[in-house]
Amino acid sequence: MIGYEIIAKKRDRHELTREEIDALVRNYSSGKIPDYQMSAFLMATYLNGMSFQEITDLTLAMRDSGIVLDLSDIPGVKIDKHSTGGVGDKISLILAPLAASMGVTVPMISGRGLGHTGGTLDKLQSIPGFDIFISTDRFRSILKSIGVSMIGQTEEIAPADRKLYALRDVTGTIESIPLISASIMSKKLAEGIDALVLDVKVGNGAFMKTLDRAVDLAQHLVMIGEGAGKQTIALLTSMDEPLGQAIGNWLEVAESIEVLKGKGPTDIRELSVILAAYMKSMADQKISYDVAYNIAAENLDNGKAFSKFIELVKHHGGDFTLIQNPQRYPKAALIKEVTAQNEGFVVSMNTYEIGMTGILIGAGRQTKEDSIDHTAGIILHKKVGDSIKKGDCLATIYTERETRLDEASRKLLNAYRIDFNAPDKQPLILGVLDKNGFRSI
Amino acid sequence: MIGYEIIAKKRDRHELTREEIDALVRNYSSGKIPDYQMSAFLMATYLNGMSFQEITDLTLAMRDSGIVLDLSDIPGVKIDKHSTGGVGDKISLILAPLAASMGVTVPMISGRGLGHTGGTLDKLQSIPGFDIFISTDRFRSILKSIGVSMIGQTEEIAPADRKLYALRDVTGTIESIPLISASIMSKKLAEGIDALVLDVKVGNGAFMKTLDRAVDLAQHLVMIGEGAGKQTIALLTSMDEPLGQAIGNWLEVAESIEVLKGKGPTDIRELSVILAAYMKSMADQKISYDVAYNIAAENLDNGKAFSKFIELVKHHGGDFTLIQNPQRYPKAALIKEVTAQNEGFVVSMNTYEIGMTGILIGAGRQTKEDSIDHTAGIILHKKVGDSIKKGDCLATIYTERETRLDEASRKLLNAYRIDFNAPDKQPLILGVLDKNGFRSI
Repeated sequence: MIGYEIIAKKRDRHELTREEIDALVRNYSSGKIPDYQMSAFLMATYLNGMSFQEITDLTLAMRDSGIVLDLSDIPGVKIDKHSTGGVGDKISLILAPLAASMGVTVPMISGRGLGHTGGTLDKLQSIPGFDIFISTDRFRSILKSIGVSMIGQTEEIAPADRKLYALRDVTGTIESIPLISASIMSKKLAEGIDALVLDVKVGNGAFMKTLDRAVDLAQHLVMIGEGAGKQTIALLTSMDEPLGQAIGNWLEVAESIEVLKGKGPTDIRELSVILAAYMKSMADQKISYDVAYNIAAENLDNGKAFSKFIELVKHHGGDFTLIQNPQRYPKAALIKEVTAQNEGFVVSMNTYEIGMTGILIGAGRQTKEDSIDHTAGIILHKKVGDSIKKGDCLATIYTERETRLDEASRKLLNAYRIDFNAPDKQPLILGVLDKNGFRSI
Repeated sequence: MIGYEIIAKKRDRHELTREEIDALVRNYSSGKIPDYQMSAFLMATYLNGMSFQEITDLTLAMRDSGIVLDLSDIPGVKIDKHSTGGVGDKISLILAPLAASMGVTVPMISGRGLGHTGGTLDKLQSIPGFDIFISTDRFRSILKSIGVSMIGQTEEIAPADRKLYALRDVTGTIESIPLISASIMSKKLAEGIDALVLDVKVGNGAFMKTLDRAVDLAQHLVMIGEGAGKQTIALLTSMDEPLGQAIGNWLEVAESIEVLKGKGPTDIRELSVILAAYMKSMADQKISYDVAYNIAAENLDNGKAFSKFIELVKHHGGDFTLIQNPQRYPKAALIKEVTAQNEGFVVSMNTYEIGMTGILIGAGRQTKEDSIDHTAGIILHKKVGDSIKKGDCLATIYTERETRLDEASRKLLNAYRIDFNAPDKQPLILGVLDKNGFRSI
């Protein structure tokens, strides 16, 4: 009857003890608590919330449902970054080698695309040969030799989270800040890291639509991380338009290569440099954020970050010659330009719809079983604030799916809102949150 | 995705349409909506409630999940009574033949004991041979010939309710007034009745602990019944002590026989007469409640109700000679008196604990698979307001289970609160509620 009692307690807004939460997760993992009891508990949690202590206990119970990596024998301060997900968010591809080039050890464990957002794993897999499912021993050995490795979450890490997430997905209990927080942090705390940098996305292409809600999530994540003894900071960054110009797996790798070579879109570069600066100044207390910022910018310009990326691809078995010569990568069979029907300024972009368009043309999955076309995607030629003349190319679609081309063009066109008055430019970085609270930067 | 969308709508406090509720019940019945989605929906309903319209729609969808009896060819106004359940509540055994003896047609469909409460079906089955699972044809034919028949709910009546109830039972979603209301009324509205009298119990032995909550439930039940075109009234009656003196299946039949012969405890007699008077005055608009009350009292005193009970038992194949000679019924193997340890007045009784003690000694089921000892039970010699001397016999336990005797004695003794000052006598009937609202009587 343990399941019943825990449901009733949460339903009646009583605080659960650590023992109760441990029993809930343990018995759910083992199948003793059935899905139909867990889903009632999840809905009660969705509607009644959880205390900070309950969320921490839930996170740790989920973390301990699988293996917890011990990377203490690997030299250096080990820091990972986690993004809550957005459109065109290829920051990890740049940040991991960039931070490693600055002496931070980056054991990065990433996920697949979720909903309308892309996933780092899918992007890495567009590089022929890149193996994201190497053994833990190989992961360690790569980390030791080059300071960075990027892999997928294995079944051994936080299996309770995977089981719970699948249930939440079909019972309307995804959008709960306590449950989202525990899900994210249970996996991150299983990674054997010393510190964590979070990129909490806010806006019409993010899971958190408002700054208030994003700050709420960030506070939870930081609190859990700090409570578990890991220095944790969260950047709050805008997802009211896609990051950079490229959406789609290989297209994003190619854009990341540009940034790693000191070029590419400024928003991608700026966010990568800021995150790398936080990681470096957390890893080394003697280095101030400002100094670290300058090092990060330099390492993009002087080729060190790019060299580290080549090493990373090489160590994971990927075809690094394609990274050196990205123009050799195959192109999508169909290429279509979406052109402006009127003139004015791009005042806003429906980022969610742009993400969904990417999925429609093969850059993401509509169901778990779908395959991805690595070459499929969108290049955005115009973004918020840009002036537009009638007939200008707004975006280019790359796809193998002829039947989707018209719908995709229509969706993309509709995702651009064009008006006469230029919009105020919104900042990319909305603030930073650490254990001392939230501040603008 | 119908399940997901309905969950999300209820979670977000939007009102569901009739079509959505129909789809929910239909797809749950057919297995297309799995238990884990339904339990999330049930918890969202528990916490967010339902509008009157939603509850009515849910009730009708559950009613229509099975057969709806058509008794229109059976003469007379057909009225059933439903009690929300209590301890020592044997009213149906008296009321059904009493009302029938007054010319009301009583097609009574009853349930098993639930939790700490007894069930009419279990009591009827303590009469050797009494068949509660006769065919619908036989049910009709008994109703036609003697105006009363008492049966168990068949699998054909409101099967969605049975499936939902089993799920609610293990997911902490029983105690929801919308769900309780829909459960009760879906079954009653499937019975082919013209009108319904409800006995909503209030107090420490009832599912509703406070008058406010009981009135809330009664309002829901009356509203659903009237909305479905059936005249419906609800009595609110006290369950702060057991009804009568007897608890346990045959012991309650024996006590009912006493009342049917014009004797027995006054609370049982009074409640039976009042309910019969309501049924008669609802069935026949020319008969006022006061006139009907007098007829009911007469029919207990003049043997008409008792004769009708003999007929009822006979038509269901029961051994009516035991009804005529109840002293011939076997006695329990073990009989133990519980005596007072101090003097004073019985100021209150923990009715729930007394009900649980009954179950402990074999008068009810701890799990669905348990069998019942028909002779097991408790006779209460002292009730609230009685003065007590040290050593007085408070209650007698009848059981076959020697190992339970000490625990049962202790529980019974603890269920009596004895103090120096006599308590104010609480009324048995707390009020009556019909479509015009609540009033005291």
